[in-house]
Amino acid sequence: MSKLVAPHGGKGLVCSLLEGAAREAELKKAAGLKKVEISARVRGDLIMMGIGGFSPLDSFMTKADWKSVCDKFTLADGTFWPVPVVLDTNDDSVKVGDEIALVFKDETYATMKVTEKYALTDDEKKWECEKIFKGVGEDSADDKFWKVALEDHPGVKMVMAQGKFNLAGPVKVLSEGGYPERYPGVYMRPADLRAKLDEKGWGTVAALQLRNPMHRSHEYLAKIAVEVCDGVVIHSLIGNLKPGDIPAEVRVPCIDKLVELYFVKDNIIQAGYPLDMRYAGPREALLHALFRQNFGMNRLIVGRDHAGVGDFYGMFEAQDIFDQIPVTGNPAKDLLTQPLKIDWTFYCKKCDGMASLRTCPHGKEDRVILSGTKLRKMLSDGSDIPDHFGREEVLDMLRKYYASLTEKVEVKMQAAASGSKM
Amino acid sequence: MSKLVAPHGGKGLVCSLLEGAAREAELKKAAGLKKVEISARVRGDLIMMGIGGFSPLDSFMTKADWKSVCDKFTLADGTFWPVPVVLDTNDDSVKVGDEIALVFKDETYATMKVTEKYALTDDEKKWECEKIFKGVGEDSADDKFWKVALEDHPGVKMVMAQGKFNLAGPVKVLSEGGYPERYPGVYMRPADLRAKLDEKGWGTVAALQLRNPMHRSHEYLAKIAVEVCDGVVIHSLIGNLKPGDIPAEVRVPCIDKLVELYFVKDNIIQAGYPLDMRYAGPREALLHALFRQNFGMNRLIVGRDHAGVGDFYGMFEAQDIFDQIPVTGNPAKDLLTQPLKIDWTFYCKKCDGMASLRTCPHGKEDRVILSGTKLRKMLSDGSDIPDHFGREEVLDMLRKYYASLTEKVEVKMQAAASGSKM
Repeated sequence: MSKLVAPHGGKGLVCSLLEGAAREAELKKAAGLKKVEISARVRGDLIMMGIGGFSPLDSFMTKADWKSVCDKFTLADGTFWPVPVVLDTNDDSVKVGDEIALVFKDETYATMKVTEKYALTDDEKKWECEKIFKGVGEDSADDKFWKVALEDHPGVKMVMAQGKFNLAGPVKVLSEGGYPERYPGVYMRPADLRAKLDEKGWGTVAALQLRNPMHRSHEYLAKIAVEVCDGVVIHSLIGNLKPGDIPAEVRVPCIDKLVELYFVKDNIIQAGYPLDMRYAGPREALLHALFRQNFGMNRLIVGRDHAGVGDFYGMFEAQDIFDQIPVTGNPAKDLLTQPLKIDWTFYCKKCDGMASLRTCPHGKEDRVILSGTKLRKMLSDGSDIPDHFGREEVLDMLRKYYASLTEKVEVKMQAAASGSKM
Repeated sequence: MSKLVAPHGGKGLVCSLLEGAAREAELKKAAGLKKVEISARVRGDLIMMGIGGFSPLDSFMTKADWKSVCDKFTLADGTFWPVPVVLDTNDDSVKVGDEIALVFKDETYATMKVTEKYALTDDEKKWECEKIFKGVGEDSADDKFWKVALEDHPGVKMVMAQGKFNLAGPVKVLSEGGYPERYPGVYMRPADLRAKLDEKGWGTVAALQLRNPMHRSHEYLAKIAVEVCDGVVIHSLIGNLKPGDIPAEVRVPCIDKLVELYFVKDNIIQAGYPLDMRYAGPREALLHALFRQNFGMNRLIVGRDHAGVGDFYGMFEAQDIFDQIPVTGNPAKDLLTQPLKIDWTFYCKKCDGMASLRTCPHGKEDRVILSGTKLRKMLSDGSDIPDHFGREEVLDMLRKYYASLTEKVEVKMQAAASGSKM
């Protein structure tokens, strides 16, 4: 019998993906339906609804759901849900009762029966952004937030740029977006990962959310979890990030190398999930916990500034929010996956090993800490990374990635230069 | 409101210690009572019953309790209890109904109303030893066990050397054995420690059981717990150990030094408890968890060979037993404090820090591991301890202790030599 946590919502895994003949038939039908273009974010949400990652969701949200999620952290029926999952469009010709095909870059990802169509005014979108992306820290006062959010917050920009209407209704998903082919053995549906966890006999399973390369600070988070759980899943985002971030194609082999050389393989699994980042900080940490529950993990490691961007959230808001969300006592409605809260981690020379602000009493001068910006610069220009920051084998792979970027730029510049000579 | 775990047994802290005028009066009365000599183990048990460390116990065990504890891990009334707490004597003149004074080295520790007197035959004592001290590993086959236990197992020797009779009955405790004076600020009653934990607002509190000096492997155990709990209590045995072990007078200042230099003080407390070691391995790990519950801790760190001696127990039997004990579902009967199971820990050169068998994939040659025997030898003869094994500041204190022992021996030998000349 499985020892794993039950999927969210009390209905088992709710998967809207069609396969085989059913999928073929639906694709044929879709060819004759009205096409609605979807955003990359909606594409990720669709795949998650397809494979059960968003259980119990099988539809884009109604206005009542949207409002309740923003306001109360629950769907209209009282089931916990932290962020809107909505389908937006500018196409006013779509009507309630229509069946439509949802298309991204010429590929049909789903069909959908439209059960509700509603507009969100700019004021409503702003209200959503404040609820979802503003955080609760002192620095998040409305004026300050709006002064920078429209420029600097990718999640806010995405919501404010949404189409005029939202369409609600159940979906039939027809594609997993090429992820199974691009990340064989790493992309896993919830049912696949659950089978793997069951095979290992695990019950207490922690997820390490990753969207950046894995350095020793992340390795340490995973290793603390390995000590206190049956096992850990390094569960990387393989969907879309903001420009300049390191793509999953580079991150996944780095994790493979790290696991190979620095982990006991029995206690760790690498897997990836097909969602885009929303950069919703605390709210997104809750979403990360929710879909981990569907994937079979009952703990989510939440460190410093989880799912954050810039200075929009307090360092540990994403930990604190887990103590502030509504709890009904009904396991079919509540979030069951709990946070494993860990403080800022780093190598400390006096400690002679990895430590965190909870364990290390020493000074800044003893700690090996690099900002993401500084690290990127050092990797790009090939300078030495301070000792103990990362594993050499992984840093080498990242150096090669940055070198290849530079080559591409140089080739382009040369091409441009020789072009201008002609 | 306190967030701490409730004391064991559902009756709050059950303390049999008298203080002030009540104590004076009882001491006067005791002077006129029949005196029964007690062992050092019984003295420790009495103090624990005095201060509430053994809640809900306020009496030495009846035969029914003794049998049920050995057989079923519960008192006769179904309350969880893992090891016998009995008062033995060879004095056949004591009768049921007597009031007696319990005396250790001329100090009256308690008075007791005798409610039951029962003999334990040698066969019954052997049965107890097999139940309590034998462990469950393959190496524990009866023959093998008895071939060595009478020679090499201090707990077995203690039980087999017990008096012919056990006396049951409620006690009034009159002394804390000088512990408050010897370990000011470290010796704490359960109520004292609970007050301190409440003051910090902690709810999830882990105990690190210690009876040896604290090296980096123990420091690492504590630091893992600091990462995942509200706080950690380094809770040392300040009672009696087997000959050759390092006394608490030396260990306590070593821990102070370690906490001062290598911990964040807010997250760690040092305290001591007045019990003797029984060396009952898995059974004693359960007792360690039980009285930690009374002291306000809901997690007990259980590492390798907890409360073991020689090769009597399997390396992780003391972890496994927590999954094998009876659970009624009634929190007033069950053990509530849970184990925080951590594997064998050590420094690993390739890991470049502390690690455990669950996190380190490297070889023996990369790990800094010393047996207790080897370490004692190195400290005694002043040779260099391998890098990363301990903290220099602590090792220095231990070197000084061993040097002082050698001096004492030399002084004695010189005295003996000059004596023989006369």
